[in-house]
Amino acid sequence: METVDQTRLPRELVWIRIESAADAAEAIAAMRVRGAPLIGAAAAYGLALAARADPGGEALARAARLLAASRPTAVNLRWALDRVLRAAAAAPPEERAAAAFREADAICDEDVAANRAIGEHGVKLLRSLAARNGGRPVQVLTHCNAGRLATVGWGTATAPIYLAHATGLPLHVWVSETRPRGQGVLTAWELERAGVAHTLVADSACGHLLLRGEIDCCLVGTDRTTANGDVANKIGTVLKALASREAGVPFWVAAPSSSIDWSMRDADAIPIEERDGDEVRSPLGLDADVAVANPAFDVTPARLVTGLITERGVADASRRGLAALFPEHLREDT
Amino acid sequence: METVDQTRLPRELVWIRIESAADAAEAIAAMRVRGAPLIGAAAAYGLALAARADPGGEALARAARLLAASRPTAVNLRWALDRVLRAAAAAPPEERAAAAFREADAICDEDVAANRAIGEHGVKLLRSLAARNGGRPVQVLTHCNAGRLATVGWGTATAPIYLAHATGLPLHVWVSETRPRGQGVLTAWELERAGVAHTLVADSACGHLLLRGEIDCCLVGTDRTTANGDVANKIGTVLKALASREAGVPFWVAAPSSSIDWSMRDADAIPIEERDGDEVRSPLGLDADVAVANPAFDVTPARLVTGLITERGVADASRRGLAALFPEHLREDT
Repeated sequence: METVDQTRLPRELVWIRIESAADAAEAIAAMRVRGAPLIGAAAAYGLALAARADPGGEALARAARLLAASRPTAVNLRWALDRVLRAAAAAPPEERAAAAFREADAICDEDVAANRAIGEHGVKLLRSLAARNGGRPVQVLTHCNAGRLATVGWGTATAPIYLAHATGLPLHVWVSETRPRGQGVLTAWELERAGVAHTLVADSACGHLLLRGEIDCCLVGTDRTTANGDVANKIGTVLKALASREAGVPFWVAAPSSSIDWSMRDADAIPIEERDGDEVRSPLGLDADVAVANPAFDVTPARLVTGLITERGVADASRRGLAALFPEHLREDT
Repeated sequence: METVDQTRLPRELVWIRIESAADAAEAIAAMRVRGAPLIGAAAAYGLALAARADPGGEALARAARLLAASRPTAVNLRWALDRVLRAAAAAPPEERAAAAFREADAICDEDVAANRAIGEHGVKLLRSLAARNGGRPVQVLTHCNAGRLATVGWGTATAPIYLAHATGLPLHVWVSETRPRGQGVLTAWELERAGVAHTLVADSACGHLLLRGEIDCCLVGTDRTTANGDVANKIGTVLKALASREAGVPFWVAAPSSSIDWSMRDADAIPIEERDGDEVRSPLGLDADVAVANPAFDVTPARLVTGLITERGVADASRRGLAALFPEHLREDT
């Protein structure tokens, strides 16, 4: 499997080869491969590579544990591993590797289809804003990168943006830098290549933009959404949700079902990854003796989320809303 | 006048000499000298230096205009210039420079006294939180640098912190990085030298910390507070105020009267400085062709402010609250 090393972007476009589960786990942990859907796909192929190397059940389980530990917050990772493990277990030993690769392929195909469907549902929301805007470009604020780089297809949060752009809807995207890792720079890079008008700002600028009426809507991705509609996403997301509510602006989350954790009632139990403090220190030239905390995600409570844009349509951010669209996963009354 | 070049901190402690109004204006615009109270003091001395070089009224007015243009948002700058101009104008030509220096000295002395008084009023607030905390350190979140580096004395927002620390109150300060210029690093540097426990975080982490119950109060400075209690402060402040309200945590602003703009009814008319986009781009290694916006301040509406800690006590963030403490500046009914 070949993938772009996202830690080198936008300075260099460097492709890396992933030839084992260990390669995949390293790439995920170091954020060479990042974005919940792409992490899922990379982990699926990592596990399929492990199945090819040693189709024994124990080796596969060991590879799955290694991959699962590479990042704790996004649910796609665990979900993709479970799917590949199940597919491999259902096949006889000599066909396990092939079954695992087929399942990894299916995960990728489904991600592309989900991106496309999210784009179609989301672009209707942008069109309704455009209709009220009298020709002025729709001003969209996004955070982190839930774009092409984060998925197999056109991205989750960016899918409606790319589709709007392709269909001539005037829009402009405000991109927050997303310290400490700067994934906003990846989004700006993607949007630039796609010809979508955009402006990069410091994370702290988003309250100002929203409260001064510069933004028509927020549109972000998610690493794990729980059954009640709580959204874990890149650190800083909840601040934008709070400012959106204050500004009276919709706050939408592009949430493919692969990122929904049906088994978790709410976000209280989501493990929030604490990453190395050097991610904060290094760009500032600070020594290791400066005390730093570096939580990588935060939780936006369902009450702050206007809607979850899934591949089946826009759901209310509630158990009822999700159960209505995904009855096979969730019953409203459980 | 000698002062620390704050753009070199914390890597190097470099002193620079300010020998003219032009030197002072350059140091303020380039943020070698920063923090509303210190900007006021530096501008006052810059104008006194101009009066010494040429006590003519026209040269003095020209120097005042140059200095006033160096940064638009903080009101201390304009206030200090007005005071020095008035003092110089009241003196005969041969005593103008001496009168100007006396006024600049007075501004500095008053800043030191205001810092001390803010510390005394603010520490009571911290003590009341400590009393509820059962011995656990009081967790204070601050933003930017409203510390010793930003004032002539012990700082505004940091004065209660230093006084609490000096009197044995257990506390821990969370410091947000404050992109793009990283003034949080200055605060961490100050606190380290003073032996105050602290942790540096990315700006985006503050919502997470507040909503997870990690913070007992927010305490920030201000560049300009209007007569109704609206607070202009470093970009990112309003996001912390919104999250504080959501978390049910007090949001206090250390506001010496020198930073209150009695003539402005509310913050709608405050000029928000837009700084060079390279401040955002350079640390990311981005070229000038990446579109960037870089507003340097935002407005926290009075309704989000729990109290304004002035040198005369803690005022409600309202015209009534400020008029009660400063009747010579403000009448409640105008």
